[in-house]
Order: sequence, then C-alpha cells, then structure tokens
Amino acid sequence: MIVGLALAAAGTRSLSADEGLWLFDAPPKRILKERYGFDVKPQWLEHLRESAVRFPGGSGSFVSPNGLVMTNHHVGSDFIDQLSSAEHNYMRDGFYARTQEEELQCPDLELNVLASIEDVTDQVNAAVKPGMDLAAAQKARQAVINTIEKESQEKTGLKSQVVALYHGALYHLYRYRKYTDVRLVFAPEQQIAFFGGDPDNFEYPRYDLDICFFRVYENDKPLKTDHFLKWREDGVNDGELVFLIGHPGRTNRLNTVAHLEYLRDINKPEFINTIRRLEVNLSSWANRSPENARRAGDDLFGVQNERKRQIGGLEALEDPAFMGSKQKFEANLRSKTAADAKLKDKLSAWDEVVGATKKWKEIRSDYNLYERGEAIQSRMFTFARQLVRFAEESQKPNVERLKEYSDSALPTLKEGLVAPVPIYPDLETIKLRSSLTDWLPRAGVTDPLVMKVLSGRSPIQAAEELIAGSKMHNAAFRKELLDGGAASINASEDPLLELARTVEPKAREARKAYDQQVEERLRQAYAKIAAARLATGGDEVYPDATFSLRLAFGPVAGYEEGGKPVPPFTDFAGLYERSETHEGRRPFDLPKRWIEAKNRLKLDTPFNFTSKLDHIGGNSGSPVVDREGRIVGILFDSNIYGLALDVGYTDKQCRSIAVDVRGIIEALKSVYDAGPLVDELLN
Amino acid sequence: MIVGLALAAAGTRSLSADEGLWLFDAPPKRILKERYGFDVKPQWLEHLRESAVRFPGGSGSFVSPNGLVMTNHHVGSDFIDQLSSAEHNYMRDGFYARTQEEELQCPDLELNVLASIEDVTDQVNAAVKPGMDLAAAQKARQAVINTIEKESQEKTGLKSQVVALYHGALYHLYRYRKYTDVRLVFAPEQQIAFFGGDPDNFEYPRYDLDICFFRVYENDKPLKTDHFLKWREDGVNDGELVFLIGHPGRTNRLNTVAHLEYLRDINKPEFINTIRRLEVNLSSWANRSPENARRAGDDLFGVQNERKRQIGGLEALEDPAFMGSKQKFEANLRSKTAADAKLKDKLSAWDEVVGATKKWKEIRSDYNLYERGEAIQSRMFTFARQLVRFAEESQKPNVERLKEYSDSALPTLKEGLVAPVPIYPDLETIKLRSSLTDWLPRAGVTDPLVMKVLSGRSPIQAAEELIAGSKMHNAAFRKELLDGGAASINASEDPLLELARTVEPKAREARKAYDQQVEERLRQAYAKIAAARLATGGDEVYPDATFSLRLAFGPVAGYEEGGKPVPPFTDFAGLYERSETHEGRRPFDLPKRWIEAKNRLKLDTPFNFTSKLDHIGGNSGSPVVDREGRIVGILFDSNIYGLALDVGYTDKQCRSIAVDVRGIIEALKSVYDAGPLVDELLN
Repeated sequence: MIVGLALAAAGTRSLSADEGLWLFDAPPKRILKERYGFDVKPQWLEHLRESAVRFPGGSGSFVSPNGLVMTNHHVGSDFIDQLSSAEHNYMRDGFYARTQEEELQCPDLELNVLASIEDVTDQVNAAVKPGMDLAAAQKARQAVINTIEKESQEKTGLKSQVVALYHGALYHLYRYRKYTDVRLVFAPEQQIAFFGGDPDNFEYPRYDLDICFFRVYENDKPLKTDHFLKWREDGVNDGELVFLIGHPGRTNRLNTVAHLEYLRDINKPEFINTIRRLEVNLSSWANRSPENARRAGDDLFGVQNERKRQIGGLEALEDPAFMGSKQKFEANLRSKTAADAKLKDKLSAWDEVVGATKKWKEIRSDYNLYERGEAIQSRMFTFARQLVRFAEESQKPNVERLKEYSDSALPTLKEGLVAPVPIYPDLETIKLRSSLTDWLPRAGVTDPLVMKVLSGRSPIQAAEELIAGSKMHNAAFRKELLDGGAASINASEDPLLELARTVEPKAREARKAYDQQVEERLRQAYAKIAAARLATGGDEVYPDATFSLRLAFGPVAGYEEGGKPVPPFTDFAGLYERSETHEGRRPFDLPKRWIEAKNRLKLDTPFNFTSKLDHIGGNSGSPVVDREGRIVGILFDSNIYGLALDVGYTDKQCRSIAVDVRGIIEALKSVYDAGPLVDELLN
Repeated sequence: MIVGLALAAAGTRSLSADEGLWLFDAPPKRILKERYGFDVKPQWLEHLRESAVRFPGGSGSFVSPNGLVMTNHHVGSDFIDQLSSAEHNYMRDGFYARTQEEELQCPDLELNVLASIEDVTDQVNAAVKPGMDLAAAQKARQAVINTIEKESQEKTGLKSQVVALYHGALYHLYRYRKYTDVRLVFAPEQQIAFFGGDPDNFEYPRYDLDICFFRVYENDKPLKTDHFLKWREDGVNDGELVFLIGHPGRTNRLNTVAHLEYLRDINKPEFINTIRRLEVNLSSWANRSPENARRAGDDLFGVQNERKRQIGGLEALEDPAFMGSKQKFEANLRSKTAADAKLKDKLSAWDEVVGATKKWKEIRSDYNLYERGEAIQSRMFTFARQLVRFAEESQKPNVERLKEYSDSALPTLKEGLVAPVPIYPDLETIKLRSSLTDWLPRAGVTDPLVMKVLSGRSPIQAAEELIAGSKMHNAAFRKELLDGGAASINASEDPLLELARTVEPKAREARKAYDQQVEERLRQAYAKIAAARLATGGDEVYPDATFSLRLAFGPVAGYEEGGKPVPPFTDFAGLYERSETHEGRRPFDLPKRWIEAKNRLKLDTPFNFTSKLDHIGGNSGSPVVDREGRIVGILFDSNIYGLALDVGYTDKQCRSIAVDVRGIIEALKSVYDAGPLVDELLN
C-alpha cells in the first residue's frame, strides 16, 4: 500500500527529509552539520570509501583486516548457487568454512573497491564540438570515454570507469581495485536469509538473516587491509543517526515530467508484462521438481523482486498527487531558468527530452526485443551474442568500440565468458521457448527475422533444437572460441552463434538508434537541466544513482501505518511467531538448525531494523554505520513505501530495512556454532 | 511439450482418429458401427442424457436413484468454498455428511438436466430478412431468440436456451430441468483432489481424487430419479471403448485461418497478459497468509488453469505445421465451394470473417476493458454492473433485451445476485487495485473515462475507497435493491453502482459494436461455411463446442512420450512415491488422513487413467461410461498435448484423464470410512 504517499518530488527545493544519495566527493556537509551537528571529516570519508566493496549488482564491506567481506545473501546468492549442485546444495543447506582451507573459490566473482574519483567533464565535453549532430556527438563522446578509461587503466593499473552524473552534466572517472580471487566463507540457509520469501519481500516487519561472508585473496593469501568496519557489538539505538555506504543502482528522480510519463505510460507497463511472463514461466517450471526449483531459484528470486519494484514504481507514477508535485517543481524551475539570462540557453532542454522519449517510443520494440534480448532469453544465447560481438568489436580500434567491449571493459567481459559456471540446458530451453512464443505476436508471424529464425519450426521446436544443438553451456568450448579470436568464432556453426549472427544486424541498428538518438540526446538535455538545477538548488542537489559509491544518512526510526506505530526493531521471538502463524509452510518454514536452536537463542535479540536511510536497488548489502564509522547493520530491503524511491523520496513512511549486527552475532554463535567467524568479526 | 504434434486440422475429411464432440440428436452412428461394431440405441442415448447434469462451467452425473450427483472437486469447489470460512475450512479439511441431515445447502448452485432438443433454425433465420444490415439482423435475431425462449419456458416450465451451432448454421432450442436446492454430501481435502497443484495440472501421470458429491433436492426431499449411472465396480480395461457425456465449453476448430490468425496474433497474447497479471497479483497476495490463501484460492486455481490452457492453445497456433494443415484444408474447401453451383453464394463467407476480425481488432480494447471488465476486476463491481443493467433492461420489452436479461435468463441472474455468498473486501481491493493500475497505460492517463473514474485519486486510493465505501458485498443489500427495482437501484449512491453507471455508456457501445459487427457477421459467415462443410463432409462433421450436451468416444489408451510408453493407469502407490520425491512439500503434500491410511489402502488400485476421448474445458466432471452405460470414471484433466484441442484434434498423444471408479471406492472405504456413501453408489 502506498496510499497517501504524498511524495516530495526530489529536489523540490528544501530537503527537510533526510533525502539524498550523495557523492563521496560532494558530501552534504552543511546539512549534516546543521541538522545533526555532525562534522564530515576527510579521514572518515576515506576510511568508509576504502572499506566499501562493490559486488555485481550490489554492495558489501570489509569487516576484518584479513579480507573478510560481508554482503547480503541475496547479493551473494548467484555465487553460492554457482558453487552448488544437486549433491551440494549450499543454497538450501547453507555453508560454513571453519578454516581458511575449506573456503570455496567462486568461479565468476569480481569485487571492486573504489580507489579514487577524478572529474573529467571538461575533457569529455571538449570532444563534442559545437554543431556536431547527435550521431557524431555520441561517437566522439564514446571515443573520448574509451580513451580516458584506457589511459587511466594503463597508467594506474586500476579498473577505470567514466560515470555520467546528473544524466550527463558531469563526467567522473572512477578507479577501482579489482579482486577476482574471492572465496565463500559463510552462508546461512536461503530459508532464513530470505525468510518469508516473495510474500514478505518489501513488507515490514521482516525477520531475515540476509547475510553471507566471502574472503578476498591476493596471491593465494587473504588480503590484508587497514580499512575495514569495526563491529559495534552493542548495536544501534532508536533515533540514532546512521549512514549508508554503498552502490545504489539507478533512480529516476531528476527526470523531467515527460520522461516520467514515458516510463509510466510505455516503459514500465511493457517491462512489467515481460517480467510477469518470466515469473509465471519460471515458477511453473520450478514447481515441477525440487531440482527444477534449485536450478530456477536464483532467476526466479530476481524476477519476483523486480516485479515488486517495477509495480511499486508504476503505482507511484500513477498517483496524480505525486505527478502534480513533479509538474509544479518543473514549472517553477523552467520559469526560473527563463528568467535568468545566464540560463536562458538551457530552456530548450525540456523539449529535447520530449524529442528523446518520442524517438525511444519509436524504436523501443526492436531495442527491447533484440538489443535487450527479450525475444531470445537464454544465458547460452547471451554468451553467443557476446562472442559474436567480441569477434567484431575486437577488430576495431578502441575508440570505435561499444563501451562494454572497450579495452577497459574487456577483461571483465572475458572473465565472465570463460568462467565455469553451471548452465542447465533444460532451464535454458524453457526460457527460450517462452520468449520465442511471446516474440511472435510482438513482431508478427510474418516478420522476416521471425521467419528466418524459426525456419518453419514452431517456437517450441526451435527452442529445443537450438539448445540441444549448442555447446554454449560448456565453458571450455567458450574459452576455445574466445582464445581462437574472431576467426575461430566466425567459423563456428554452433546454432546459437548462428542465431546471434542472424539477429545481430537488427540488434545493432536498434542499439545505434538508442545510443545516438535517445541516450546522447538525453545526456545533452539533462546537462542543461542539471546546470539550471545546480544554479538554483545550491548544495541541496545530488545526482541520480549510477551504481557508483554514495553516502546516505538518517536516523533509525519506525513509522506509522493505518494510524498505528510500527516499531523499528524486530527480534527472534517475532521470527518464530511468524513461522507458526503460517504453520511452518514454505516460505515461512524454518531450517532445522533454527528449530533446534530456539531454546539456546536469546529471543529478544534485535534482528532487523528500519531507518530513514535513502536507498535503492544496488544498495543491498551496504553497511549501515554510526558516527564513528562502526558497522551497526547491513541493509537488505525496503518497506513497501520504499518502492517509490525510484522516482522520489519521502521520509513519512519510506524505510530501509537492515539486519542488526546483534542478531548476526547471536545467530552465528547460537545457531551456527561459528566461533572462529565471530572472533574474527569482534577481533 | 507439444512438439511434433502434427495436429489433424479438424474436419480434414476423414476422421480416422476418434474425434468429435457429437450432438445427442446427431450421434456418430455409422462411425461407431463401422469402427467398433457398436449400435447407438435411442434408449441408451436417452438414459445418458437424463443422467447427465450441467454445472456452472462444468459437468456431472446422477449416480444414485436418490439425486446423488458426482462431479469434479474443481467444478464443485466454488460451492464448497462458499460454504467454507476461516473456522470451517472444507476446502482444506474436506467434508462428509454421513446422514442426509448433515448435508449442507449451497447458497448459489443451479444444476441443469437436458430434457429435450428442438431445431428452431428456420424460425430464427426467418426473422432475419434479406437486405437487413448487420445491426438490424442482429436485433431481429436476438428478438426472435428471446421470444422463442420465453414462449418455450412459459409453455413447458423448463429453462430454455437457444444454442447457435456451427457458429450460426443451426439454432437448437435446449430445454433443461433446473434444480436450485443442491446440498453438499462429500468433498475430499483439496490437497488430494488437486494433488500436484498447478505444476502437475495438465501433466500426466496424475494422482488426483478430483471428485465431490452433491445431492439434488426437490420440495426439501432428495430427488427420485430413474435415470442415474450404475457403477461398474470392476472398472475398465486398457483398450476398451468408452464414451464421454458432458458439456464441452468452447472450441475453435471450425474457425477459418483468418479467424485463427486473429486469435494467435491478438486475442490470445493479450488475454494471456491479463491472465498473467491476475496470476501474479493473486498468488503474491495469497502467499501473505493462510487466510489470504484460502480467500484467493479458488480464483487463483481458475487463473492458473486458464493460463496453461491459453498458452497451450497459442503454442498450437504458432506451430507452422498445424497452421499449414488448416490452410490446406481451407483452400480445398474453398475450391470445392467455388466449383459447386449450389454453394457458390457461400464463397463470400471467408472474406466476411476477415471483415469481422478486422472490426474485432478495432473495438477490442474498449470491449475487453469495459464490457468484459478487464479495467475493473471485482466481484462486487460485477454485482453493481448487473444491477445497473437490470434497472435498464427490465424496463424494455423482452425482445429488445440483452440476452442475459431476457425473460428466460433473468431467474438465474437474479438468483446469483441475491445469493448470500461470501465476498472478501480485502481480496476485492487487491484485484481492483491491480486492474486499475493496468488500465491506465492501456487507456491512457488522460482518457476522459479514466479521469472521471479516478477523480484525481491514484488507482490505489480509488480501489480502497470504492470497495470500502460500497455495500455490494452484502447479499441483503443487493436483494433490497433488486426487489426495489429500477427506481431503487437508480436512486442508490453506492460508489460501485455509480462506477458502473459511469462506465456503462462505453461498455454498452462496445457491446453493441461486438454483437452487431463481429458476432452477427461471424454467424452469417459461418452459416455459409458450415453449409459448404456439411455439403462436402457428409456425416463426419460436428459443431464446435457450445457448453451444451455432447457425446465423445474412444478407447482407454496410454501414449508414447520421448520414445517411451506412458501406461494408461496410475495407482495409489504412485501417489505416495510422487509425494516422497517432493519431500512432501506443497503442492505435493498429502492430507493427514491419507498418510495414516497408507497401510490400509490397496496400493495397486487404479487411480487415474487416460483415454482418447475428445474433450475440452467444461467437460470437467463428465462421466466416462462403458457400452452398457455404466460409469467407469470421471474426467478431470487433459495431458499437456490435449491443450491443443481448442483448435484441433489428434489422437497421437492427446489424452483425457479420468479418476477411476475403483480408486474412488477404495478411497471412500479406506481413507474416509464413508460406508453409507459407498453403499449408495454400489446399491
């Protein structure tokens, strides 16, 4: 329920709420000083930056001097899953390496630690000459970005990424230390990490031990680091100021009204249809057998999570009160812009965004079907597509390449291609069959590409033959092709490679149209709008999330619902009660260890807690720290009101949800008998 | 999987397969004689007709001289559900009335028994004069049908319905004895009735006791009937000829290629999106608590069942081999039609169907949103809509009314309106919220009707206020309005009545366009096509299903899958094994009674069996009888290949699935200790 949300449209001048996903090189010093009497010190920031770890799609942090990293179970689950099999089901049964020798190396996990930030806006913008059309501008911009990243990487040895802030007003170069030898240390049973499953996801109160631990190795030895978060054993108090350090993925708060309308009317509804198809398809297959459920589990979790997020975002956009506040803010900003002689040339930006969304609407079908791959959903196909693109892109000079094939991006891409992760042809077949079946009505049965791909077969037959005939599930096969380079890839007749080649012209065309006519135009337009906002909004403006490191702040706090207070802390007693209410049925069943440990556990130990910390997907696994930088919790969820945070912030009911460090220690001690791990955390 | 289905397009001349949903007044006498040496006797037919019972959406049969009726649990579940509450959960726990006093009267269950069939084609067609445009033709046709039904009802006292066969080539008047005092006698736990749940639905082998028993009362006494099916205690054998007596709901086998293409490209994909939305929405809400699960259970079953059916149908239509056979058959029929002087005037029919589907495509959005009600999904809204329409239609002469408000149809409609069935406002709110949220992108946020309905509210707010403010969940309130007639209904300011009035003009407009420009045109066109088929197809043509009584035939038979034989019978031993494979987890858990009864049960008792009987949704609950008319099973499911039966029949792998009478008796005896019921069945 997000009734009566009355969202403050982001940036509506005064940030009375504790809003903001702040840049580490532009923290909200004045606000923190004025509101909380807190001084942001450079060493404090540096220590947090160096302690923060970026996971694929999520966040984490160092929690010991020996490279121990904590993140959410649902962030680590991809990798726990890759280590699992029908015989060793670590997702179901959990995992604990009591000694370092027992730690399990992940076949495909890269962690990043942010080492530095550099402003390269002038350099990027200088490459785009006045009078260039969109195509030329986009090419010039991509070229200079690829060059900056490559030079930085060569100079520093660090993974280098240029991040477009405010949708393109600023370009910052982020340099990361990259770790690829990462080993699993501890994971609880998924059943307690994700207790309550999809029904309770985003629904407070929650009772989840959504954590796992990995260890970073360098040269086959645990990484020694001075920067790690100390454990605050006595935990945090209601009302206390806390901070969130992590990598929020993507928000749409600065979008113009036209851009939001496009999301509301076209983008989200269509994407939600695709998500629902996947969910129904995966869950119906998963339920056929326990092994199916294991194989599809991680995909299914992602899809269900995304479904709730997208519907929550759509519902916020369909609230006239919310859109009204956005309209009001925009009208105000436009009139200020028009009134300011220095800003007048920015006024065309709003129409440019309208132009970009019109173009987007026009090309979206091909872009979504072929470039985003909704027509052909299969992990094996994604590998094939990457190989086909690698063959083509690697022949080009760096400046001309797609960004994910640039010299700075290629190492990660190649590591992913050859990683020996398990692939299940039966699951691949089911996903491909469903997406092909859906593709026909979307593109039309007589569409030339449809006819070429199916060649007289039904989607079912085509899916079965394509997957059965392909060797893309085999990492050694992929490595052989990759090592053989373009010649080897182009010579292969693997049916999925052939399919990727068949689809490639249309996918490329859609990608080009999107990059040049939509993304580049949005970047130029938002650069102007951001200039107007920054000129009128002072230090209360922060950029939308970009999966780069951000700082959020706010107090631990409960909220009101239906006139009743919802307290900020849950405890273990509540966990057992909730399970009993559901007669212990999935997804409210408890692992055997937890049933047995009930008498040993201190049932009033705080388990999860809510706070006003601003956040979004990608923040999963982010440490919650106190004024002294000690870890007090790990963020893992949002309440239902928080689903609107994509497009705006309010602190009225929106809350983030974290696992309390006290609950973690108590569980590690009393349920898992994990003495050595507890000792390492508490020093 | 329906790979390599190679469906015979229906009516492709020779019915080598045991195809057909045959009319009781035109049974396949010659085929049965030639193929099976079986003589269809009039008394045999009459006895089966009188023993067959039509349920809302399903089938059943009398199985004792004292009005005992057997149907599927999933046909009876609506009514078992209506008798259940959080305290008396008969769906979960089952129900057995050991004595007649304990039998529970259903608040809203009407059963029909077919008493006679009369051909009224000439009378209907005579009302439609040459030269009438479509609108005039539709009005004249509806008027004469309403009149025929009313006169028949007045003359005979029987419920009278005119059925359009072959999409409009023949009009038959079906007269039914109608029973409204129906009481629940026995229902097993849903868990064994629907063992395997959605994952196993349509997936053979199956292990389901999908039965329940009701008793028909007249004047507060059990109905005495001479016509009931005798129980064949020793059951049926592999390969034995059996018959299916029931009410198949709807098929599309005689559709032209253009009509099938419309279903494939537009109708089914869009409907599947709606179904998926409902499924995700209901299942996510149901999983929040056991009571939610109980409340949403019946809706959710229906939606998941429909999702499988629709996707199965779409996959058949997307198979080029299947569509190729349809195209070939059609080209052949058209050339024969052109070549025959007597049929030449029928040749325009195929273009008329094209015209009808074009119009359908044009009006479908409004028709689906407002007339079918996809924009506003709520049982309470449906009641409100019926009241508003009743107020308007009841002022008109019978000949001018919509068919469901004609004098012959009104009694059933009114009974449904005032029946004290449980309605759950929380479930209503969730459904309405989801449909309104989906409505906005479909109609557009600035659509005048959208704006009027929402009046500045978000869909969430609107849904909550509409349901919270309405009394439509209260049967007494509905009865008061109905009894008060148009004046009372029109004066009420119930917010759902007001909503129904607001939507009514657009819904009416869409209904009129559909009835006149689509349905009437299809009727006229298919009357011509059917004439051509009947002239060239001899006695091997049968009409598409119309939820009227039909006869199907074929042997008990297994099939092959992946080169391996699938035997036609399952047994109780298989049930316990399947549950163990799934570690007893939902939906593969067994009721407590069944776990305890394992040692008492004869584990090799036949439980479910497959046969080649042609069937479709609506046949659920149909008795399977032997040559002597003795009951040997009750149909409840189709295997996965059978999902294509909507658009064509093949006996290669398509199978129907029935509960074996031997399994029923063994379960009633050894699990339920239901001696009196067993005695009644076996005499």
